[in-house]
Amino acid sequence: MKKTEYTAAIIKYIPFLYVIWSDELLSPSEISIFKKAISSDIISEDDKSLLEKWIDPNNEPPSDIIRSWKTMIDESGLKLVESDPYPLTYFSMRLANNNQDTNIADESLKYIEINLGIQPNHYHHLFDIKIEAASGATFYSAEKIDALLKGDHAAHIDTFRNILNNPIFDFKIIRDKEKFRNNVLEQVKYLAEKGYGAMAYGKEYGGIDDMPTYANIFENLMFVDGSLTIKFGVQFGLFGGSVQNLGTKKHHDKYLKDIGTADLLGCFAMTETRHGSNVRGVKTTATYIKERDVIVIDTPGENDNKEYIGNALHSEMATVFAQLIVNGKNEGVHAILVRVRDTNGNLESGVRIEDNGYKLGLNGVDNGKIWFSNVEVPRENLLNKYGDIDNDGNYTSPIENPNKRFFTMLGTLVGGRICVAKSGLSGAKKALAIAVKYALQRRQFNSSEKIQEDLIMDYPTHQLRLIKPLAKTYVYHTVLEKLIKEYANSKDNERREIETKAAALKSSITWFANNTIQECREACGGKGYLIENKIPHIKGDVDIFTTFEGDNTVLIQLAAKGILTNFKTEFNSDNFMDVLKYLGTNVSDKLITINPIFTNKTDKEHLYDIEFHKEALAYRTRRLTFSAASRIQKYLKKGIPSYQAFLKTQTHLVALGSSYSEELSYNEFLNFTDTIKDEEMKFLFRKLGSLFALSEINEHAAWYLEHGYISANKSKAIRKQVERLCSELRPHVNTLVDGFGIPKNCIATPIT
Amino acid sequence: MKKTEYTAAIIKYIPFLYVIWSDELLSPSEISIFKKAISSDIISEDDKSLLEKWIDPNNEPPSDIIRSWKTMIDESGLKLVESDPYPLTYFSMRLANNNQDTNIADESLKYIEINLGIQPNHYHHLFDIKIEAASGATFYSAEKIDALLKGDHAAHIDTFRNILNNPIFDFKIIRDKEKFRNNVLEQVKYLAEKGYGAMAYGKEYGGIDDMPTYANIFENLMFVDGSLTIKFGVQFGLFGGSVQNLGTKKHHDKYLKDIGTADLLGCFAMTETRHGSNVRGVKTTATYIKERDVIVIDTPGENDNKEYIGNALHSEMATVFAQLIVNGKNEGVHAILVRVRDTNGNLESGVRIEDNGYKLGLNGVDNGKIWFSNVEVPRENLLNKYGDIDNDGNYTSPIENPNKRFFTMLGTLVGGRICVAKSGLSGAKKALAIAVKYALQRRQFNSSEKIQEDLIMDYPTHQLRLIKPLAKTYVYHTVLEKLIKEYANSKDNERREIETKAAALKSSITWFANNTIQECREACGGKGYLIENKIPHIKGDVDIFTTFEGDNTVLIQLAAKGILTNFKTEFNSDNFMDVLKYLGTNVSDKLITINPIFTNKTDKEHLYDIEFHKEALAYRTRRLTFSAASRIQKYLKKGIPSYQAFLKTQTHLVALGSSYSEELSYNEFLNFTDTIKDEEMKFLFRKLGSLFALSEINEHAAWYLEHGYISANKSKAIRKQVERLCSELRPHVNTLVDGFGIPKNCIATPIT
Repeated sequence: MKKTEYTAAIIKYIPFLYVIWSDELLSPSEISIFKKAISSDIISEDDKSLLEKWIDPNNEPPSDIIRSWKTMIDESGLKLVESDPYPLTYFSMRLANNNQDTNIADESLKYIEINLGIQPNHYHHLFDIKIEAASGATFYSAEKIDALLKGDHAAHIDTFRNILNNPIFDFKIIRDKEKFRNNVLEQVKYLAEKGYGAMAYGKEYGGIDDMPTYANIFENLMFVDGSLTIKFGVQFGLFGGSVQNLGTKKHHDKYLKDIGTADLLGCFAMTETRHGSNVRGVKTTATYIKERDVIVIDTPGENDNKEYIGNALHSEMATVFAQLIVNGKNEGVHAILVRVRDTNGNLESGVRIEDNGYKLGLNGVDNGKIWFSNVEVPRENLLNKYGDIDNDGNYTSPIENPNKRFFTMLGTLVGGRICVAKSGLSGAKKALAIAVKYALQRRQFNSSEKIQEDLIMDYPTHQLRLIKPLAKTYVYHTVLEKLIKEYANSKDNERREIETKAAALKSSITWFANNTIQECREACGGKGYLIENKIPHIKGDVDIFTTFEGDNTVLIQLAAKGILTNFKTEFNSDNFMDVLKYLGTNVSDKLITINPIFTNKTDKEHLYDIEFHKEALAYRTRRLTFSAASRIQKYLKKGIPSYQAFLKTQTHLVALGSSYSEELSYNEFLNFTDTIKDEEMKFLFRKLGSLFALSEINEHAAWYLEHGYISANKSKAIRKQVERLCSELRPHVNTLVDGFGIPKNCIATPIT
Repeated sequence: MKKTEYTAAIIKYIPFLYVIWSDELLSPSEISIFKKAISSDIISEDDKSLLEKWIDPNNEPPSDIIRSWKTMIDESGLKLVESDPYPLTYFSMRLANNNQDTNIADESLKYIEINLGIQPNHYHHLFDIKIEAASGATFYSAEKIDALLKGDHAAHIDTFRNILNNPIFDFKIIRDKEKFRNNVLEQVKYLAEKGYGAMAYGKEYGGIDDMPTYANIFENLMFVDGSLTIKFGVQFGLFGGSVQNLGTKKHHDKYLKDIGTADLLGCFAMTETRHGSNVRGVKTTATYIKERDVIVIDTPGENDNKEYIGNALHSEMATVFAQLIVNGKNEGVHAILVRVRDTNGNLESGVRIEDNGYKLGLNGVDNGKIWFSNVEVPRENLLNKYGDIDNDGNYTSPIENPNKRFFTMLGTLVGGRICVAKSGLSGAKKALAIAVKYALQRRQFNSSEKIQEDLIMDYPTHQLRLIKPLAKTYVYHTVLEKLIKEYANSKDNERREIETKAAALKSSITWFANNTIQECREACGGKGYLIENKIPHIKGDVDIFTTFEGDNTVLIQLAAKGILTNFKTEFNSDNFMDVLKYLGTNVSDKLITINPIFTNKTDKEHLYDIEFHKEALAYRTRRLTFSAASRIQKYLKKGIPSYQAFLKTQTHLVALGSSYSEELSYNEFLNFTDTIKDEEMKFLFRKLGSLFALSEINEHAAWYLEHGYISANKSKAIRKQVERLCSELRPHVNTLVDGFGIPKNCIATPIT
């Protein structure tokens, strides 16, 4: 059929007819509205009767006629311009008028388009024509961004991500905890088989002796599922890590290989019902009985049991943290390997294990409570790197100071803390990717001038909600990657500073991750609430990251203590005297002079200036350090006990810890961007950095204003610049979430 | 046995021996440490051998001896002073020394107490002695507070809370959604039977015509379970409410009684997959066919189905919101009753319903998707209060303006919005009660001077975390109660202002509730993550309150528009022209002059001054109104289209909406406190109010500083005063959560 067979009056209705008939079912509303439209159109009676024939529900036009409509449209060479106020009306008019544009919409067509409320996304897939849509820019390459983030782990990560495509990792909703846990156990064993469990162990134990790569695997695993990630981490990181770091060669030789292959399942029994944050106060006892050369493990009171122990329901063995008593003397907390089940899975005598039951999230992890009733284990089960019982039954240790010994033992576990921050951040990445992709196709509301609704990604509130955390996620990714490398290569004298960094970043980043995931849930509206769209699981799983591996509020205060003493005091110390001793001489050195010459500068160049960002962030940390130290000293001079003095400054210390974390993150991010060779890419990353820095300054604007560091005008200018940067990054938002390199199946949902 | 039978050296060990033997099982660590202690004590050989006999695990002292130890302790008349550095040591020394106090701890006793790490809460239940514990104050009466909050609904609420003790409402973890939903359905039917479903309906339909009491029942129901609350609300509030408010007498007579008894189950089918916030854009059509005098309900495209519809899987009937087309003209969105199932529960022909599946929370509510394929219903099923089809088949309406008609229909549903805010706040109350009670028995860490660990409620960070939201909860309770009464008694010309208030408060309070519940989860550490402790369900359920009954971000902007036009414009309007028209003449009136004379005052009297609080909160709202209006005008003058101008000020509008909500809440709270006759009670409530006001000012300190409303010093003083108020309220914290009147079984958990 040729276009010329019909009058222009007929042709202009053809796209509408095609759209209306395309579902092979004419609805009463379509008939009713179409008829009304043609009845008031000034067209010939012949045309009118043809159109009426074509809208008769009892007499569908033959399919070759319908097909010919489509051909006419497809071959027209016309574009559908989504930004037209009435896209289908304008398109149809161009079709009828030999491609000539017009500014006045045909009243009849407009009537149909409005009253049926059809929108481009309803019909544009029906045509083979070019669509001029308002899509995102493709200026930057997601692959290149991903390559930058992967850094020198690229080969391992790429192989691993391929493995995650195995159907064993497909998303399933399993409500029953036993079934969910068994599914996760199968996944863990599969990964162990592929060699991923042992990565951080030495070659002789099946590994590659590479903790940073292990951490990268761990964070990628979070793209699949939180329960899997945590169970994996408990088995290989916590349980295996305790044998590796607290044990000696005899333990490594005996256990490490089987742990890496998941043939020996184990758990890490540190926390007790009554003692979580205060590990030093655990009540479980490990009493050496010289007569039988055994250590007796015992839970003294009903509530002194171990609790929340991951892998407790599946484990054969447990690393138990207990007060070691040798010759009637308490030598402090030590770790002892205790067999809790035989190889058939039956509980050992004297061991009681109960399920912790259902949780807010992580229901694929078998957390449990464990009681020991005078369970005897051989002396060699003491993980004896930092404290041993010799053949004469006497306690010995290479570290004389019991405090230092305790903190050295805990310090070996700091890698786990960094991993938790990394995987929490992965949760945020996954939620952001889903929410951004949804926002790029979800439309709602429009201006009265046009019929197509706006993408919700184009609302400024939505941009602030998603793009600000997106930028922060990039910054946090790089600082954690840097830290895990520092940790893996650290020397003894760097340990305290690394512990401080890990504590500060773990708190800040897991809080950040939770807030971000919540924003993403809300940004997806009701869709974000459905488990099929994956955000609920991320939210439930990451929630507890603020509590485990160190409660955030406690950790951030420990970090503050490290900062106050320039990392000179034992980390984790709940004894404040060493901090005070240090403070006694050095308070005045704390306030390194910063000269804020920028108070009133509000030009864009200045607001984007890295030197300004660095100085502002540094100023806050220094100033808070100085003022916290001064306050504590003042209290002490008044005779207030040190413990009370610290309590009184608690909220101050929390602010200090978080300020330190922000400064550290930004500085490490800048170091990272310095290594980027591609100038365009560097420009993009620097923009992300600017958004991070200005957001942080803006979030603490009250503090900066109080200290006269910025003027009122500057504070307003910074707030505006944050909104501005979000809109500048808007075109690249899809590329930026793709840059996280999340395997497609992990973020495949009905809404993405 | 008399005390005098033993030497003082023996007596001082007796409390320890009793504690150690009380679980009838002597552990190796106890033996080992006890032996070490007596071996270095300077006591006679006779005493030593007696003590050694008593600590022999193979030779338990006879039970009459053990009993005699207890008698000696119980009859001593001594107190156990928990604040003693070593409570059991000091107690034992007083026992041995005829009640004489001493300041130097016995070294051997101290050795045992430290090395076994026993704490008062481990053993004080073993003795019948007086304990001097650091418990909360009982100065205020929780019952009196509760009575104030219940107000004139007290009788109804008390009866209802008694009903909630029925075992049918016992807390159960039901993972399978079908089972959970059936359980909830049983509960809903039980409540309907008791007459609670119909409360808001007229007497002729089984009710008492009392919307505010219905709202109070609804918020109390939330103490039991979120799913139950929402399903109850869907059946009686949304479905029943639509018949009551949008229908006419014929509908009331035919349906309302059966709805109130839950004999007719129904749902409220407004939201569509593609249209949530923009209700006016729903795609479902309702086309009147004159020939057959029927209305045909049709879902045009696959994604134009209704979604998230509560009660969809159990309903017989649905109130369907659709574009009403009469004589080929779209008359806008109207509500039509559509039978979706027959009385046997089989789907009507043309109706397709699918389960929405598992969700983050509310899994006891059967949310579903509904498609209609040319389903015919009689003309009288149109809920015709605001729009009708007459016998000649012509559309008529008492409201000529289609905009106004639409908003009038939506406006009748604002009661549901207030109910959502109320029940969200109930969720926060429940979480706070659990977290506070846990914090009053949970101990962690201690100063080096004493053995007993501190209650976590005594940490300043914990006080800020829990007591600040506690105060805000009281304020929000009263403003919502006031609003529901205003709503129930409102005249036509007050409607817009009430809608604005409801929108602002619903957003602010459901966001507040979510944040508070999250703080409570974290404040309970790992225990907060276990479903048995009830916080996870609250968290999962209340999460969606920020989205349903109006997305918070959208609602708060609507509220801002109401404020900008002094409630002169149609609420809910997505047409900005009416706002602009109003703004054209009145911008300069917006900034009612406030003269901030208080910039530098920081004395306590001033900071507690109600006039200061009121002025500060009012100043912010006024100033934001003025600046938003000015910005919009400026854009318009530059020729920026009105829709774009509003987009550009979006974040500004959000700030305005939330500021308005805070000011309104505080003012209504003050009005409420004016009615309190008991002066002591009034003092307490005023203190809660001060904490609310200062917290809000503190949270917006950057804004106040930017505008020169407060000085830097004052900003710091306010922050300190917030911390101070939290510690002043600390002794009353238990009374304050009991004041919510939550039935005991609703907050009974293993940790409370």
